[in-house]
Amino acid sequence: MDAVTLYHWEPNANSGKPMLALMEKGVPFSSHYIDMLQFDQHKPEYLAINPQGTIPAMTHNGLVLTESTAIMEYVNDRFDGPDLMPSDARDRWRVRWWMKFMDQWLGPSFSMIGWSVFVGPMVRQRDPAELAAAIERIPLPERRVAWRKAINGDFSESEMAESRRRVGLGIAKLEEELGKRPYVGSHEYSLADINIFNSTYSLPLSQPDLAGKDKTPNIMRWLKRVYTRDAVKRTWAMGKTDLANRYGLIMAEIEA
Amino acid sequence: MDAVTLYHWEPNANSGKPMLALMEKGVPFSSHYIDMLQFDQHKPEYLAINPQGTIPAMTHNGLVLTESTAIMEYVNDRFDGPDLMPSDARDRWRVRWWMKFMDQWLGPSFSMIGWSVFVGPMVRQRDPAELAAAIERIPLPERRVAWRKAINGDFSESEMAESRRRVGLGIAKLEEELGKRPYVGSHEYSLADINIFNSTYSLPLSQPDLAGKDKTPNIMRWLKRVYTRDAVKRTWAMGKTDLANRYGLIMAEIEA
Repeated sequence: MDAVTLYHWEPNANSGKPMLALMEKGVPFSSHYIDMLQFDQHKPEYLAINPQGTIPAMTHNGLVLTESTAIMEYVNDRFDGPDLMPSDARDRWRVRWWMKFMDQWLGPSFSMIGWSVFVGPMVRQRDPAELAAAIERIPLPERRVAWRKAINGDFSESEMAESRRRVGLGIAKLEEELGKRPYVGSHEYSLADINIFNSTYSLPLSQPDLAGKDKTPNIMRWLKRVYTRDAVKRTWAMGKTDLANRYGLIMAEIEA
Repeated sequence: MDAVTLYHWEPNANSGKPMLALMEKGVPFSSHYIDMLQFDQHKPEYLAINPQGTIPAMTHNGLVLTESTAIMEYVNDRFDGPDLMPSDARDRWRVRWWMKFMDQWLGPSFSMIGWSVFVGPMVRQRDPAELAAAIERIPLPERRVAWRKAINGDFSESEMAESRRRVGLGIAKLEEELGKRPYVGSHEYSLADINIFNSTYSLPLSQPDLAGKDKTPNIMRWLKRVYTRDAVKRTWAMGKTDLANRYGLIMAEIEA
């Protein structure tokens, strides 16, 4: 039983990382869609797989793997297919620098904005008693706090301001870096591109004041390179919400 | 010019990671001690190396590397000497899971406690005008906020409570994991041990209610294994503050 099973939400942020890495490597996997907006990740069936209730999770030969970036390194290490890490140690350092920058510094700010404009308003329409019960089931206290803030629209003005500051700086830094080479970490497509793309693929729509063909031409050229990859198209076709429908809109913007 | 230069504070937390990795690999390096308590990391000489003013930083053949865990992976990749990553992909995943857990989830909580009981009180005795000027020179706004809180003793009760909760959970999780194998990530010493050790080497002194030979025997056995490594002894001998003097006290506790 050499089967890979992936528990994931949309091809977006953390869930999209192992989806894209597996697709690029050509590794077949059984897909379990976890509907984050229905709190599937906190239900007993899923907690039996990952007791922390975070997504994504991947199983392989009985091993349960969590943490999306560490899963990507495992996928690249363990399976045949194109190498998604550059051959030069200096480039590998740059790949890991960017993944750390996104995972720890910039990504949480993109998430906070995404939660306040998208996840919060969608979930908020539900029955309050049902929502309260759903929050009670969240195993990690820090995730309980974050969900409560998202649902109640309780992110403070200073938290939102810090997130906007980081997003502005992060986009400027990415634009500068992509002026030096065609991909984020090296001259070849790598795990860094997969990682960063999953949080930036919709920038021309979500941050039109900061990103677009006039303001960030390097990012736009890079987005086009990534969007047109076969593995990306096949992964995006697995999306079930409006997030995935943005593909066509953004391609139109890139090609305009 | 194949020279390695390391800019670092004490063999502690982030600074200790590349120090120990270089020592284990047997890579000679030129050591530049950055006195964090004198804010050396925000002075023009150092900002010329790393404009973000974070430590550690390493230069190698003209390349400037930052982010301590990514530097360790580079050191292990790039130089001869013992391999500090396990040979099995599953074990490498576990190494990276633990490094991510420490760097992003547990480490900041250890730091907050360390700052509130050690760094803050030491720095607070200085001339207020000098301190204010030192804070103004910090390039990253989020580091400016953190230093101001440390100096003024301004961490909120809920921030401190969350840090204590994480430290308690983190120690319990480490104790459980070290019951399964002699080292954190695999049966061999790896980057995960270096990473985790740098934030936990003084637990029997700093958290006597949570760690010690009765409460956490697995951690104590692991600490002894790591403390008695030649590379660790030589690295600890480079310390200049009281932090490094704890070595003898903790060995006495371990051997008691």
